[in-house]
This record gives sequence, C-alpha cells and structure tokens, in this order.
Amino acid sequence: MAGKVFFSVTMSLDGYVAPESPPVDGFLAPDKQNHPDVRRWMAQWAELQQWVFPLRFFRENLKLGEGGEEGRDNDIARETFERTGASVMGKRMFDLGEQSWPEEAPFHTPVFVVTHTERDPWERPGGTTFHFVDGIEHALTQAREAAGDRDVRIAGGGATILEYLNAGLVDEFSIALSPVLFGAGTRLFDGVDASRIALEPVRSEPSSRVTHLTYAAHPR
Amino acid sequence: MAGKVFFSVTMSLDGYVAPESPPVDGFLAPDKQNHPDVRRWMAQWAELQQWVFPLRFFRENLKLGEGGEEGRDNDIARETFERTGASVMGKRMFDLGEQSWPEEAPFHTPVFVVTHTERDPWERPGGTTFHFVDGIEHALTQAREAAGDRDVRIAGGGATILEYLNAGLVDEFSIALSPVLFGAGTRLFDGVDASRIALEPVRSEPSSRVTHLTYAAHPR
Repeated sequence: MAGKVFFSVTMSLDGYVAPESPPVDGFLAPDKQNHPDVRRWMAQWAELQQWVFPLRFFRENLKLGEGGEEGRDNDIARETFERTGASVMGKRMFDLGEQSWPEEAPFHTPVFVVTHTERDPWERPGGTTFHFVDGIEHALTQAREAAGDRDVRIAGGGATILEYLNAGLVDEFSIALSPVLFGAGTRLFDGVDASRIALEPVRSEPSSRVTHLTYAAHPR
Repeated sequence: MAGKVFFSVTMSLDGYVAPESPPVDGFLAPDKQNHPDVRRWMAQWAELQQWVFPLRFFRENLKLGEGGEEGRDNDIARETFERTGASVMGKRMFDLGEQSWPEEAPFHTPVFVVTHTERDPWERPGGTTFHFVDGIEHALTQAREAAGDRDVRIAGGGATILEYLNAGLVDEFSIALSPVLFGAGTRLFDGVDASRIALEPVRSEPSSRVTHLTYAAHPR
C-alpha cells in the first residue's frame, strides 16, 4: 500500500511560515548568528515555533537531553515524524539547513533535495541520507520508493511546498496555526492556484499553544 | 461595566475575508448581479461563508423563513449577534450594503459609519439606525455609549477592521477559518502592525464546517 504525500508546517495567523530573510548570506551559519538582523529572524522564528521547543519529542530527536512536555502537542509531533518514510526538500532549505543542522540531522530517513546541481548522496550519522535529484516529480518518485508504505513529507521550504500543492501532488497537509502576527515574510499560500485545489477538512484540534488543522487536497 | 470591542469574520485558510472586487461600480446592486464578474464574486463569497447559510439564526435574522440547522455553529452566530450593542463599519462596506441589505437591515442596533461625508441618521425598520461619524475614535466613542454594557462590533470591511486593530482599539476577535483557498482578494491582516500587537489564544473550537478561533489582542 502506497503512503500519502503530505506537508506539515507551523503558520502564523496571518499566513507566514518563515520571517523575512535577513540580508546576510548563509544567515544560519554559526558565525552569522550575532548579526542583529539574524537575531531578529531567530527571535521571530522562535515565536512562531514556540509550541515545539518544550516537547519531549523535540528534545529527544535533537538529543537535547531528558524531559520535556508530553500530551497532545507532543503526540502530534511524534506521529508526524513516525509516519514519514522519506522527505523532499527544496535546495534553499537544504542550503540553510546544511549550515545549521547538528551532525546528526533530525530527519533519520532518506531526504530528496530538489536541485539542478549534481552531487553524490551525503550520508549523515543517525540514518539521514541526502539525495540530490532534478525535478519535483522525479524527487517525489524516488521518495515514494524509499518510503515504502510510509508517507512522504514535503519538508519545505514554502516555495517547494507550493510547487507540489499546485501540481496536485499533495494528498493532505497539516498546519499548526500559531497565535502570532508576522506582517512580512514567506507566505505559505502566496501564488496558490486556488482555481484548481479544493480542501476537505479532516481534523481540527486545539492545544493550549496552537490549533492543529488537517485538510485533504483534491483537484477541483 | 463597559463592553469589549471585537470583530468577528470568516477568513479563508490563505487569509482572505473577501474575494477580489469585480470591476463593476456598486456591484452588489440588484441590477448588476447578472454580470459574469459579479456572479464569480458572489460564488466565491458564498463558498467562504458556506457555514452561515444553513443556520437557523441566519434564516431567522434575515426573515428567510422557518427551519435551519441548530448546533454549535448556530449558537456561535447567535451569541455574536446577541453580544453586540452597536456596530462600527467603514464607508465602503456601508455603500455596498446600502444597495443590497433587505429593507430590514440585519444589524438591529445602532451602526456607526466612519466617513468624512456628513449625513443625517438613516433609520431602518427593525431597530437599525445608521449614524455617520468622522474618524475611527469618534465613531468608537459613540458606539461604546450606544452599546452600554454590551459589546461593540467592528463589522468591517477588512481595511476598517485593520485600522482599529493597528490603533490598539480591539480587545478581542474571532475568526471562522473556512476550508477554502482564494489566492486573491482582501487579506484581513495585510498591513498589520505586527510589532505592536501580541495575540493571546482564548478559544479554538472546530465545527464540521469551519474552525472558530478567538484571540485577545494586547499591545506588545
């Protein structure tokens, strides 16, 4: 049985999944993090993602140590991780992550990076191997094969998620709607082909910090 | 005890509270409604607001006849109406509504229209009287007085709501998040002064058709 293709993001109430990028090349590299614009970006990012950091699963997955909160938010974070047999990501997200993920990258599955640039697979400790593939459909085909009967997660960034959504390749998605307003940044649905996508509400579940929304996407 | 100042809108998942206006003057007037662009607007609007039309309260308030659905959506629509002692609206919303509200306008309270144009109060059957007031603060002061211990609703449109929100004059707001994507139109939070407004989640309640989100707004 083939798995689903899904994405799962945290979004501000005004529709942003990331703050406006600071005008600093490779801004997530450790030596850039004292730049005031980078610090502002990190603070906004942390505010958006504030529901994730206290979770037991988050601490465990990044090897930050024992403890952390259990409960529905934690279960949802863990379920999202466990259903994922392979991930797909855009080149920009990979480039930022390459500078900032820990040695043991937090995916623990094959990750297919959509890029025109050829590169040998990059194997990390802990089961994450990055494969570099040209074209969104090609990347998805390989990710499906690697995932087996588990699901494929379109990990990001926003532009890559939208390409898959507009191409009709996303079955389902989840949004953790965060109680913040950004006013600027990367909007998840900017450029969405609304005439072609109908949403079916699957689940809506409030937690104390966010509202977890799940929709199925259908052609219309 | 003074009431709260709130707004309550239905928003698409991508952040729109109205479709893109058709290029037709006074497009809600009865003689314009066969124009194809107006029909498209009406269809999108109806899709956004689809949770409201089947409700018993909606039918009752617009005197559309007996029947209609009860349940949580209906209770929420009724509670929103009953808490409202006075409304405030922008001139553009008033102009569109003047052409399309039934003889008995659906507010049944005083309504303060923010406009530079002087005009005598306009009294409608059923308890709705429109007052024309210059300036958002002046309009709000009068609405508060008229509302007594009930709440003041900033009825719309999007631009007027945002003016009140950015001025720090909104205590609380509710969004019925509708499972549709618009891709274009009037964005509720476009131009929000995110650096000045902090949100506190008050309530999040899914129904079968939408997710009802309520936040308190605080200065930050």
